[in-house]
Amino acid sequence: MLRAVETLTAPTRLTAEELIEAWPALAQEEQLEGFRLLDPGQADDFFQSLPVHSQAGLLLELTPAEQRVWLRQLAPDDTADVLQEVETETRSELLALLDEPTRREVRALLAYAEDEAGGLMSPRFARVRPDMAVDEAISYLRIQARGRLETLYYAYVLDGDQRLLGVVSFRDLFAAAGARKVSDVMQRDVVSVPVDMYQEEVARVFAEEDLNAVPVVDAEGRMKGIVTVDDIVDVVEEEATEDFQKLGGQQALDAPYLETSLGTMIKKRVGWLAVLFLGGMLTTWAMAHFESEISRVVVLALFVPLIISSGGNSGSQASTLVIRAMALGEVRMRDWWRIARREFYLGLALGLILAAIGIARVVVWEELFHSYGERYLEIAATVGVSLVGVVLWGTLSGAMLPLVLKRFGLDPASASAPFVSTLVDVVGLVLYFSVARLLLP
Amino acid sequence: MLRAVETLTAPTRLTAEELIEAWPALAQEEQLEGFRLLDPGQADDFFQSLPVHSQAGLLLELTPAEQRVWLRQLAPDDTADVLQEVETETRSELLALLDEPTRREVRALLAYAEDEAGGLMSPRFARVRPDMAVDEAISYLRIQARGRLETLYYAYVLDGDQRLLGVVSFRDLFAAAGARKVSDVMQRDVVSVPVDMYQEEVARVFAEEDLNAVPVVDAEGRMKGIVTVDDIVDVVEEEATEDFQKLGGQQALDAPYLETSLGTMIKKRVGWLAVLFLGGMLTTWAMAHFESEISRVVVLALFVPLIISSGGNSGSQASTLVIRAMALGEVRMRDWWRIARREFYLGLALGLILAAIGIARVVVWEELFHSYGERYLEIAATVGVSLVGVVLWGTLSGAMLPLVLKRFGLDPASASAPFVSTLVDVVGLVLYFSVARLLLP
Repeated sequence: MLRAVETLTAPTRLTAEELIEAWPALAQEEQLEGFRLLDPGQADDFFQSLPVHSQAGLLLELTPAEQRVWLRQLAPDDTADVLQEVETETRSELLALLDEPTRREVRALLAYAEDEAGGLMSPRFARVRPDMAVDEAISYLRIQARGRLETLYYAYVLDGDQRLLGVVSFRDLFAAAGARKVSDVMQRDVVSVPVDMYQEEVARVFAEEDLNAVPVVDAEGRMKGIVTVDDIVDVVEEEATEDFQKLGGQQALDAPYLETSLGTMIKKRVGWLAVLFLGGMLTTWAMAHFESEISRVVVLALFVPLIISSGGNSGSQASTLVIRAMALGEVRMRDWWRIARREFYLGLALGLILAAIGIARVVVWEELFHSYGERYLEIAATVGVSLVGVVLWGTLSGAMLPLVLKRFGLDPASASAPFVSTLVDVVGLVLYFSVARLLLP
Repeated sequence: MLRAVETLTAPTRLTAEELIEAWPALAQEEQLEGFRLLDPGQADDFFQSLPVHSQAGLLLELTPAEQRVWLRQLAPDDTADVLQEVETETRSELLALLDEPTRREVRALLAYAEDEAGGLMSPRFARVRPDMAVDEAISYLRIQARGRLETLYYAYVLDGDQRLLGVVSFRDLFAAAGARKVSDVMQRDVVSVPVDMYQEEVARVFAEEDLNAVPVVDAEGRMKGIVTVDDIVDVVEEEATEDFQKLGGQQALDAPYLETSLGTMIKKRVGWLAVLFLGGMLTTWAMAHFESEISRVVVLALFVPLIISSGGNSGSQASTLVIRAMALGEVRMRDWWRIARREFYLGLALGLILAAIGIARVVVWEELFHSYGERYLEIAATVGVSLVGVVLWGTLSGAMLPLVLKRFGLDPASASAPFVSTLVDVVGLVLYFSVARLLLP
């Protein structure tokens, strides 16, 4: 029935939206067929909205004539992104399909790393000269708009050497009296970023300054392009995804989940899993030290998973909070002592709450089922004291680990929940059995 | 020494950047003092760049005369955001400080939920009529720019009833011949969002359509405002932060880490921690069922933490991947079977790799230290078989849990690493001891 309705409303053509929905699930030939079925108008929108690696994948399937058409639809910064996805040989073939001025622009962009300001920027920005009148500048911008411009949000005021003197927003230019000089209405205090600034840093500049576009300058202060806020949305999503995946205890994937091959997936996941497994073997070694305690009071073993997972859980809370706060620039290295102090009190409070629940559980179970024998009060005390210690340790080490990693030049996001748990497990076990040895001699 | 240098370079005034750096670490009076020490020009930038809840906090400390000055610096959508942070009574006082037209705009915005399109939008957009000539439209926009406009990126073409007929980008308007009609150069196929669309959905529309601004329309199709891409950057960061914090096994905080009070922090963290603790008690119950196995072969207990943490770690990998892919719209409910199939093969492969390491460990330790007695081969086999099962179970349940939560209308991001671990622990223990019962009778 549903099928029939669909056929009625879209009898022959496929819409771009339908194809975007279905895309990841389609085989390569189906993708190609679907793309060729689109209306010309829709196909353009569709191609523009595909993620870069899918654009590259699709292009490689097309005939050279089609490649020429679609490659020329892209802005030069997007073209450079697509070319960075393909092999060097194919890259030259695709470059040959562009017109000469665009080819030169794209070549210049390819010289920058993908994840730096230079790799994000578009060379097509609106420029005016400082000695122009406002009316003259607006006419000049109308000519530029007929060519190729990424955005008409700001006009950049450059001297003869392409050095950035100031910026004027379109709103201000429009609102100014026509006879005033550009140099009188422009803002001289311009925030700019160097070509080699890392994209995460660029995103932070956008957030702090609340900008719509930022000019990119080379080491000599010459303006090379602009990064616009719509590129930054992608950067923010990309960086959050990387941190997410690291937080799950694995390497970041470079492509969407369903488009990553099983082989790559195993490679990205087995590394940390094996490291954590080897680290986890320390728990076996720690428990072996207390084998005689376990064989004397088997009941002690029953609480092991509960105790260590409580430490891991509280550590995971603290580490995610600190990792995210670091990524957003809310906390910095020099805040470590404030964080440690807060997490100390928090760990103590949370540990006491869990200890109360844990002690209640042992006492109630003993009353109801006589599970733990006559020394149940000592067992309850062991569980309670250990819980306070383990939760406190988990919270503190979870909060400090991201800062320690950063201190040694590593990514704080590697302080994943699994990493923190493994770290906390060993200490938690030693603590638990040491308390038991003391209270249950 | 350092102090002296600092005093030399910044003798009297504080820069906005210095104050932003120091802000979270300052007491309320220090914040107020620092703010009043800023140059007037810097203070404006500084106030604009503060996060909403800090703007609200600062405003409450100021005198009514200062409040009037600073409140009037904000765009109406930002004013509405600030007012949403304060108590109802203070809200009326602050509203009274605005001029009449702005107060009306802000009142209209306050009617929408903060996290919906209506709460994000600005009512100050550029509008033209369809029968205007391009030159006429540009002059008309120059007049509008002298008033108040959020952005001059698109001009929206409205009929007499404020219904949206089309849109024309500034680039196209600029590039068009001056005598053509707006209705001839406008695009009729406009993407718009309803006032009550949830902000995460709006962000997805931006990503899919690659837009710089999107018009917001009410149920009658009348245009009420625009959401610009710079608002979307904040939404994307906010949503990622919420998911992050849930992934760490806690409720999302509403304010930056260092600005959240200890009391709030405990409230946000103790809930899940206690639930997981109660869930974790099932492990004690499961182990109690195998008390006699443990007391006969104490060595079995030594591997418990290693086995269950391997299940938890592989589950945490799978759940973070699926949660993030769902948040980005890369996978949907109907992909569940493809995900389950992939994760089945992945779990099997990862489990076999860990099992190989685990078996090697038991055999090598036996050769070196004679740790496990004559039945070490049976113990190795128990560890190996359980690892394959536990990792497979962890991977599959980690991948499926976010989809199951979504199916029941819950947030997939609640399938945190701690939640998945606790779920996997119980099954892992039962599996391990059942295998032991079989292989070590």
